[in-house]
Amino acid sequence: MQPLLKEIRNTPLLWMLVFVPTVLAAEAVLSNSHTLLFVLSVLAIIPLAALLSHATEAVAARTGDAVGGLLNATLGNLTELIIAIAALRAGQYTLVKASIAGAIVTNAMFMLGACLLLGGLRYHVQEYNRAGARLSSGLLLMATVALLAPSAVADLQHLPQDGSVIHKLSVGISVLLIGVYALGLLFSLKTHKELFAGAEHDKGEEAPWPIGLAVGTLLVITVLVALVSEIFVESVQKAGETFGMSPAFVGFIIVSLVGAAAEFAVAFSAARKDRLDMSVSIALGSASQIALFVAPALVLLSYVVGPTPMNLQFWPGAVTMIMIATVTASFITGSGRSAWFVGALLIFIYAIFALTLYVVPPAGQG
Amino acid sequence: MQPLLKEIRNTPLLWMLVFVPTVLAAEAVLSNSHTLLFVLSVLAIIPLAALLSHATEAVAARTGDAVGGLLNATLGNLTELIIAIAALRAGQYTLVKASIAGAIVTNAMFMLGACLLLGGLRYHVQEYNRAGARLSSGLLLMATVALLAPSAVADLQHLPQDGSVIHKLSVGISVLLIGVYALGLLFSLKTHKELFAGAEHDKGEEAPWPIGLAVGTLLVITVLVALVSEIFVESVQKAGETFGMSPAFVGFIIVSLVGAAAEFAVAFSAARKDRLDMSVSIALGSASQIALFVAPALVLLSYVVGPTPMNLQFWPGAVTMIMIATVTASFITGSGRSAWFVGALLIFIYAIFALTLYVVPPAGQG
Amino acid sequence: MQPLLKEIRNTPLLWMLVFVPTVLAAEAVLSNSHTLLFVLSVLAIIPLAALLSHATEAVAARTGDAVGGLLNATLGNLTELIIAIAALRAGQYTLVKASIAGAIVTNAMFMLGACLLLGGLRYHVQEYNRAGARLSSGLLLMATVALLAPSAVADLQHLPQDGSVIHKLSVGISVLLIGVYALGLLFSLKTHKELFAGAEHDKGEEAPWPIGLAVGTLLVITVLVALVSEIFVESVQKAGETFGMSPAFVGFIIVSLVGAAAEFAVAFSAARKDRLDMSVSIALGSASQIALFVAPALVLLSYVVGPTPMNLQFWPGAVTMIMIATVTASFITGSGRSAWFVGALLIFIYAIFALTLYVVPPAGQG
Repeated sequence: MQPLLKEIRNTPLLWMLVFVPTVLAAEAVLSNSHTLLFVLSVLAIIPLAALLSHATEAVAARTGDAVGGLLNATLGNLTELIIAIAALRAGQYTLVKASIAGAIVTNAMFMLGACLLLGGLRYHVQEYNRAGARLSSGLLLMATVALLAPSAVADLQHLPQDGSVIHKLSVGISVLLIGVYALGLLFSLKTHKELFAGAEHDKGEEAPWPIGLAVGTLLVITVLVALVSEIFVESVQKAGETFGMSPAFVGFIIVSLVGAAAEFAVAFSAARKDRLDMSVSIALGSASQIALFVAPALVLLSYVVGPTPMNLQFWPGAVTMIMIATVTASFITGSGRSAWFVGALLIFIYAIFALTLYVVPPAGQG
Repeated sequence: MQPLLKEIRNTPLLWMLVFVPTVLAAEAVLSNSHTLLFVLSVLAIIPLAALLSHATEAVAARTGDAVGGLLNATLGNLTELIIAIAALRAGQYTLVKASIAGAIVTNAMFMLGACLLLGGLRYHVQEYNRAGARLSSGLLLMATVALLAPSAVADLQHLPQDGSVIHKLSVGISVLLIGVYALGLLFSLKTHKELFAGAEHDKGEEAPWPIGLAVGTLLVITVLVALVSEIFVESVQKAGETFGMSPAFVGFIIVSLVGAAAEFAVAFSAARKDRLDMSVSIALGSASQIALFVAPALVLLSYVVGPTPMNLQFWPGAVTMIMIATVTASFITGSGRSAWFVGALLIFIYAIFALTLYVVPPAGQG
Repeated sequence: MQPLLKEIRNTPLLWMLVFVPTVLAAEAVLSNSHTLLFVLSVLAIIPLAALLSHATEAVAARTGDAVGGLLNATLGNLTELIIAIAALRAGQYTLVKASIAGAIVTNAMFMLGACLLLGGLRYHVQEYNRAGARLSSGLLLMATVALLAPSAVADLQHLPQDGSVIHKLSVGISVLLIGVYALGLLFSLKTHKELFAGAEHDKGEEAPWPIGLAVGTLLVITVLVALVSEIFVESVQKAGETFGMSPAFVGFIIVSLVGAAAEFAVAFSAARKDRLDMSVSIALGSASQIALFVAPALVLLSYVVGPTPMNLQFWPGAVTMIMIATVTASFITGSGRSAWFVGALLIFIYAIFALTLYVVPPAGQG
């Protein structure tokens, strides 16, 4: 525990951990003050994300960048999964689908773009492991094609209106996607793990945490993030209504940004240490994981916890945004080199998506 | 003839050649037993495809991988062309268009994916000639864009209902496509043939066939494949109806898979010998050839042998599937490296396409 | 002035400069002879474009290929901007939007393809700076995504019919696009200008012009091109009606080709001198500049000089053509190598686009 306590004492940001018990208490007492709960939950998520960043880097320091990146992506997406399950239970399927689409786009465009921009502001030109990035982006491209195939290629106009065909198709594809995800773990963690090793860097400065402490902290903080995130998602929706945001906008932008806050912290910190291998691995790996694991798991879980089953049918604009995000991320990371303007352009396209979604929400979203 | 007879004696698979006369006889006697004819024709195509594989490799051994690959793609697509002409004569335009779209997708996703998977199960990481693959995939990308341009960019809602405009456009584009195909042969066989030469490999094991025997076997077997394929396509359609498959599914999946069986055998065998240059050249070259030669030839032939002219208008899902297959294949082969999971993912996307098409056929296909 | 006069005396093409005063006089006297004015204005633009080519190369010789290319792209697009402003003033928004879409597609497909073809007919295989091309094509990809985002992702069916939402969105995005354009100039001219330096080549043959003469000639010729282009655009439209061309076809093909004539001359001449770095930089840079600067400037200018505001909503076929052109150009230039057939294919796809647009114009264009 000592390295952890020393870390907290030395990092003013982590003093904000005091907001974690505060928001949990406030939720019990003042469960109707949505704006207060929203602000408190964001304030609580920030230090949790930062601490998760430290713990993940401590594990990564002992296991190589890519495994650390994968670990972090899993835990970060666990948060998103828990948030989406809460929305699923409430039958908010527009919010769930928007948060799936938004998580892929946010990871592949905003997180990647912010990493390239933050790194590029400190280093003139950054180089990273091109083969690894090509592999990650190839997997992401195929994962999103698999996820979107029914929305993109099915001629759905003439189907029976009860949606039974779409539901059967969605379940079939969800089972296949989870099978592919398992194969992907076999591939990246066992048969070809050397392909996912990042470039070597100096670790320097800080003595690494013991592996037990690092893993333990990872687990505890993940649970806390989940608890606070649930308060967050409940309050942000009410806050969204107050500010005139549609459920599609709230899910696509707000839930995605906050749900991935922990991964942002790790990826940004790696970018500013010129370890773009790790940043790119987190951003693209996390987006792949949403498509291959979180989305199908939510479809299957909807049969257990939801009021009605959920399908994999996305609205046309979401399909286009996901495909643009994936192809652009693939193309950009294919060169293995980056400078600040590349990151700025990615963030800019993300901003245009957000602006469009804010001004023109999908039909029937209000 | 001796090396050929020796080959047949030593390869149990080739003993199945006995089904070739069997199916031809059965077709004359039992022309209504569609399920029997279907099974027999598949059993006959398998050894023919294998023998074609040996003959093509024998020619390729003397001419370089890429020319052998081109030769094989031409002969394999000749089969597909003959199958499609039979459907054309019967006025089955949905089947013809689905088999064109399916042949491109099957070559670029399933054949490529299966080669990468089969090769990857034997070799940890496979490297291949990246410049050659980039060239092939660039040609494929442009060939499919040319083929799909009218379906994708034309605003067809307000046209006269007799389709005269689309037919004029289709004929014009078909003539242009065949002209480009001729330029492409000039390019790949004459002015820049050195770009299409594969990497060097040990030939080893078997003494190569004399060139005369190899070419003669190629020609004879191709004709036999065509004869058996015609029985196959007639029986598979009736069998398809029995199993509740739409003409679009039969054309896209079944006809494509069987029509390309001969190329599969060659490409798979090359992949398992770590000659991915040849596999990629066959898969992408064959898909290009469908787009640049088979499709426009069928449009022009429809004026001669069909009951009415056929146009180049594909249903929207087919356009999307072809574009996804082409862009994905281009991206995947751009790295010049492969491992088993990449192949598994390509096959998986192909399976999702098939599943979607089976569950949700295009409108008006029944 | 002496090197300029010597240049004109030695180059028979430049003797056609006599058509410049001719067309200006004819416009004053015979302003109703549209076919005559059309022919004269084309005859006048050709030598102006050639002279602009010489002047730009003279500047480029002293500043490096890429800066020269950027300079040329700016001046070439200034012409297009002036042409579009004339159409804007007349309220011809279909023509303006078609010329924006057409300029991007013409630069990224036709100009690039013609450069690769012309260079490839003289040199067997041409190599160019791959990193620079990847950067240019990445910027182009993101610029067009930004421009097209509202057309592609907005679900516009259920919006109020007065278009107020689209106009607000278009103005917002136009301001963002111009901001990004300014950041891009900062990037390419200041912080990372070394990335845009072309490969070294022998200059040889001719003594370079003094920088003052080169810049002065550039400016004067640009103004003359603009004057003649305005006559051209007025007469070509009337000529278009005579030949049964829709405004969409005239804007997309004719205005784009003539508007970019000056850049064609420079890019083609560079390609034939094996300086593909400069050709690719001009073609892709010019297309980016249309998306990031000309298009948003026209939207904002429409509030000042147009009868009603113009928005950024393109017809679906234009969106598809722009995306295909951009992705194809990105893919083709990613390899850093070229041969004649690659150029021929790009020109061929452009021809199919033109044919489709001629035969099937977008709805409501007549």
